[in-house]
Amino acid sequence: MDTLSRAVRKSGADAYVIYASSRDADMRYLTQFVTSDPFVYFKKVNENGMIIISQMETGRASRESTASVMTRTQAGLPEILKSEKDPWKATAKMIAGQVGKKVLVPPNFPVALANALGEFCTVVVDNGTVAAIREKKSRNEIRAMKHIQMITETAMGVGVSLIRRSTVKKGILQCDGKPLTSEMIKFSMHSHLLEHGCTAVDTIVSCGEETAVPHITGTGPLHADEPIVIDLFPCEEKTGYFADMTRTVVKGKPSAEIRDMYAALRDAKELGISQVIAGVSGAAVYQAVVDFFKERGYESDTRGFVHNLGHGVGLQIHEQPTVGPAGRALKAGSVITIEPGLYYPGIGGVRLEDIGEVTTKGFNNFTKFPEELIV
Amino acid sequence: MDTLSRAVRKSGADAYVIYASSRDADMRYLTQFVTSDPFVYFKKVNENGMIIISQMETGRASRESTASVMTRTQAGLPEILKSEKDPWKATAKMIAGQVGKKVLVPPNFPVALANALGEFCTVVVDNGTVAAIREKKSRNEIRAMKHIQMITETAMGVGVSLIRRSTVKKGILQCDGKPLTSEMIKFSMHSHLLEHGCTAVDTIVSCGEETAVPHITGTGPLHADEPIVIDLFPCEEKTGYFADMTRTVVKGKPSAEIRDMYAALRDAKELGISQVIAGVSGAAVYQAVVDFFKERGYESDTRGFVHNLGHGVGLQIHEQPTVGPAGRALKAGSVITIEPGLYYPGIGGVRLEDIGEVTTKGFNNFTKFPEELIV
Repeated sequence: MDTLSRAVRKSGADAYVIYASSRDADMRYLTQFVTSDPFVYFKKVNENGMIIISQMETGRASRESTASVMTRTQAGLPEILKSEKDPWKATAKMIAGQVGKKVLVPPNFPVALANALGEFCTVVVDNGTVAAIREKKSRNEIRAMKHIQMITETAMGVGVSLIRRSTVKKGILQCDGKPLTSEMIKFSMHSHLLEHGCTAVDTIVSCGEETAVPHITGTGPLHADEPIVIDLFPCEEKTGYFADMTRTVVKGKPSAEIRDMYAALRDAKELGISQVIAGVSGAAVYQAVVDFFKERGYESDTRGFVHNLGHGVGLQIHEQPTVGPAGRALKAGSVITIEPGLYYPGIGGVRLEDIGEVTTKGFNNFTKFPEELIV
Repeated sequence: MDTLSRAVRKSGADAYVIYASSRDADMRYLTQFVTSDPFVYFKKVNENGMIIISQMETGRASRESTASVMTRTQAGLPEILKSEKDPWKATAKMIAGQVGKKVLVPPNFPVALANALGEFCTVVVDNGTVAAIREKKSRNEIRAMKHIQMITETAMGVGVSLIRRSTVKKGILQCDGKPLTSEMIKFSMHSHLLEHGCTAVDTIVSCGEETAVPHITGTGPLHADEPIVIDLFPCEEKTGYFADMTRTVVKGKPSAEIRDMYAALRDAKELGISQVIAGVSGAAVYQAVVDFFKERGYESDTRGFVHNLGHGVGLQIHEQPTVGPAGRALKAGSVITIEPGLYYPGIGGVRLEDIGEVTTKGFNNFTKFPEELIV
């Protein structure tokens, strides 16, 4: 019996029900159908999943979705709408007509629909069964993610090359006689990604003082002798999977503090990676890096190493498992990042991030991109 | 009193609470803060909204968000997590510590969090107050959306020019001696969009038989004498707003059926636009086009005009209002599409789509792009 059927049976329910667009990772995973509007998915024990969509989408859904397809008309929606004008109640009635007396729903199921469904059947909230299924990637998913990571690394190469080839004038990087900006690096990387079917948003190319704040995306001319943090996490349009990586570089001569931070960081990443193996907890891997940083004189508080060590990646850029204080046992087949960072206002920030697969032997690192501070 | 405060007071609640990432349009609208992980927003009557985020994000949030900022630590989360391991319950306890005895939540609020919150306070589900606020755009929003539509039209121009400049060999469009494909048109348009800070996904460049299915995104070489449907709906990364437009073109000589369909379509779009004015219902505008198509011999069923006439656009590509059978009265300041289409398996499909603003005088069409069937 498949895992989702088992969860449905264990909860005593008749079916698992989702209502979301394909931007919801569980929905995309279970249906392989991409659409911007929310739709209904349900799955009864040991049956194939079923989606309920508009007549207009049936041709495409039949070709693209791994779920079976039913139109809203077949599910009786037009008839229901004659007497029920509230869209949540109408959708609930339509679902209830298909699924029996008790349904299992994901934790992020819309409360309005849960309440409306409650008038027809018992609603039980699941605790992350689909997220747990997604946590362990198949060989096909691993192959897809390695491919996206490869594209991401060539894009990173495009960005780093622009910095490497730049000249310096009054402390500002120059490219073709003009200041080289954060925006230009992002554009060049994004263009490369686009050529390979990937889209990136919120890419970070921050420099100098900006780098002391981990998630500032960066803007304006890049400076010599200062850290430049490039964090790139594109999504492949065709498959929906993400990759994720970060490098920190300096054009010119970094300060002694930044050089020392970077040296500690590189060792911290290696240490973190060496601790990863199926069965060990994300919390233990994180703690090993915290302890290591402490030895080297760096705190893990509101300064220093201020964030988690890593996170799962898949159809979401941040998903299970967590490699941080709350991290549970890592599972073979999870794809995670290992991304230590050090951040000091007034000095700057540095971060390195690799992505790879948790195995029973250790960490299968997908990331091949070199670590060079000075370019 | 602001509209959201009014809704809170009317429901007898102490605060409005959202838990979502900034991919949720309501969240982005109310906070102007962009992050990929879910966070808490709450607003008490006549107070500024407040977001609760991680320590690491406070610097950026203070700069970027229109809401006030509180860290999870300030909201007591680390203390709560010592005794409460369930993340939904811990988040609920943290929220309850801030908001009083009764909260109003949006319809898509996660059911697991609603249930957990229910142990501390009464949870009332709102009926789309924020969506209704978003439905009426401010002058700044209108300005941003006109700007994105302008970028979208130049991208459409890039795509159509490639088709116009192509040659034909054995019925296949050629560009630089190679077959011109759907993928090449998409790439050229997306590159142009990227240069202007916009990203498009699920862009449609379909041809021939594919065009009879409205949402097939299209693939492979483009054919002469067949309709090519280009539907482009990019999002501007900086603001999060969408634009949306569709054109249908033919390289060569379309069939008589396609020519007739296109002529009817162009008139249908003009008719639809002429019916738009604040106060008239989306249903009435839709029905006028259905009636017009019927006169011209085209049905609106499982063939012919198979979808709604239009939809609201803003921080979501599909939002309120609906210009279809369920459409309520249009409000001045809404941005909507008018997009009739005709689809006949075996013959093909044609669609034209403009975007503009509903005003008290009519429809302020943002779309200036020409309608030419034969290019």
